[in-house]
Amino acid sequence: MGRVTVRRPVVRLGPDGERRRQDALAVEEPLELRVGGRPLAVTMRTPGSDVELVHGFLLTEGMIRSRADVAVARYCDSVDAEGRNTYNVLDVLLAEGVPAPDPGVERNFYTTSSCGVCGKASLDAVRLRTVFPPGADPVTVEAAVLAGLPAALRSAQRVFDSTGGLHAAGLFTARGEPLVVREDVGRHNAVDKVVGWAVLADRVPAAGCVLLVSGRASFELVQKAVMAGVPVLAAVSAPSSLAVELAAEAGVTLVGFLRGPTMNIYSRDDRILG
Amino acid sequence: MGRVTVRRPVVRLGPDGERRRQDALAVEEPLELRVGGRPLAVTMRTPGSDVELVHGFLLTEGMIRSRADVAVARYCDSVDAEGRNTYNVLDVLLAEGVPAPDPGVERNFYTTSSCGVCGKASLDAVRLRTVFPPGADPVTVEAAVLAGLPAALRSAQRVFDSTGGLHAAGLFTARGEPLVVREDVGRHNAVDKVVGWAVLADRVPAAGCVLLVSGRASFELVQKAVMAGVPVLAAVSAPSSLAVELAAEAGVTLVGFLRGPTMNIYSRDDRILG
Repeated sequence: MGRVTVRRPVVRLGPDGERRRQDALAVEEPLELRVGGRPLAVTMRTPGSDVELVHGFLLTEGMIRSRADVAVARYCDSVDAEGRNTYNVLDVLLAEGVPAPDPGVERNFYTTSSCGVCGKASLDAVRLRTVFPPGADPVTVEAAVLAGLPAALRSAQRVFDSTGGLHAAGLFTARGEPLVVREDVGRHNAVDKVVGWAVLADRVPAAGCVLLVSGRASFELVQKAVMAGVPVLAAVSAPSSLAVELAAEAGVTLVGFLRGPTMNIYSRDDRILG
Repeated sequence: MGRVTVRRPVVRLGPDGERRRQDALAVEEPLELRVGGRPLAVTMRTPGSDVELVHGFLLTEGMIRSRADVAVARYCDSVDAEGRNTYNVLDVLLAEGVPAPDPGVERNFYTTSSCGVCGKASLDAVRLRTVFPPGADPVTVEAAVLAGLPAALRSAQRVFDSTGGLHAAGLFTARGEPLVVREDVGRHNAVDKVVGWAVLADRVPAAGCVLLVSGRASFELVQKAVMAGVPVLAAVSAPSSLAVELAAEAGVTLVGFLRGPTMNIYSRDDRILG
């Protein structure tokens, strides 16, 4: 644990010639999620907040609805060649009455429609699974509050400045107070850690909250916001077409290119007060 | 087809107030890959170069070794609610004698070791599958050539400037001549499209070549370079710890933070001539 960064030798070439030095790198390690002892998924992630990560993953994939749906989440006794626990296998025991996941769950998420996979079918699949639809959330957010969030995310990021290799996600109140910030080499993992924190804090649905991500807004990230009942999703970079379509259909306010006081609002702009 | 960007209405807030306008977005749509009619994987990708994408995916996952291993790759007759072909399902028929993929292939990739998943086991899994080990490739590249590649990638990118939402990957000769540049909302897809181009052009193993990616270098991207026999992988941003470990073990020269004449070399720096 605590393996968020490592130091490695590097040759740095520049206009002044060559220097050998130590460089900090973001740690990437596989995490295997097992449910009831059965492997469900492997993700390449930055170690830390793993229990949050699996709660967030299970919630945003529609397999649990609250912390009460998880009876136990603990590291397996997996060991490496030297006999040390790898802390890379987490086994979740679901609470009684919670159905075990379909092993083909990830694939089925996109292919529930008989019309073949398409953007529309992907939107339909999310709608069918949504437990906490965020469309009716009456929250409003001042544009000036949004403008300050990227700086707040950066200042809460402990590792980015030393490695440049981590994505960040943060959950904020509508007044801009940070609730939680998490980092990961995978941007979906950073969001899952934040959502998992909310699950464990009994804050899902995340009504009245703003979720900020350091990079782009893909379909998958909007899907995670929808599943967690987040009414406002803001991204520092561009959204994709399907991200905007899903946000519009699900009633999520989607903000992109959030850079200080400049931002694009792609859906439900009524929640942003200029 | 040709759906690489779409225009959507957006509200732009800035210091000068609010403007409503049309904004270009990168298209994201699901692509389902079937092998012999059986669904294997779904990826969210930007349409275009889909046949390259599936060739690159199959090669980097160790399922094919050359274009001869694919008998046919064609779009299925999947239609949307209006009866139009979605062009989102590609069916591949493998050549005679090429074994059909194990349905659990993605998971097994990381869990072949009995010691449980860990970085070491992930490296071992790649080593077992490597057909074109790039370690012995004698190519050298002038640092000045590398320094010019990010600008060459940007100038070859047709869509990034209009949407800000696409990753790019490009394959170059050791003298800096561009062979192919591809873009996608997913960075692994951009690399798969480039590798697939090389498969179809009978240029795998990609001996003597440099693969440049517009973002970070993850374990997965280094794995794709190793599987395609690429000796030099360069990234505009940071590598992860496991990316560096795999590059070092496989004999790939890994360059990060490539920004004009400044760059970090994490492994096999003997190939870069300062």
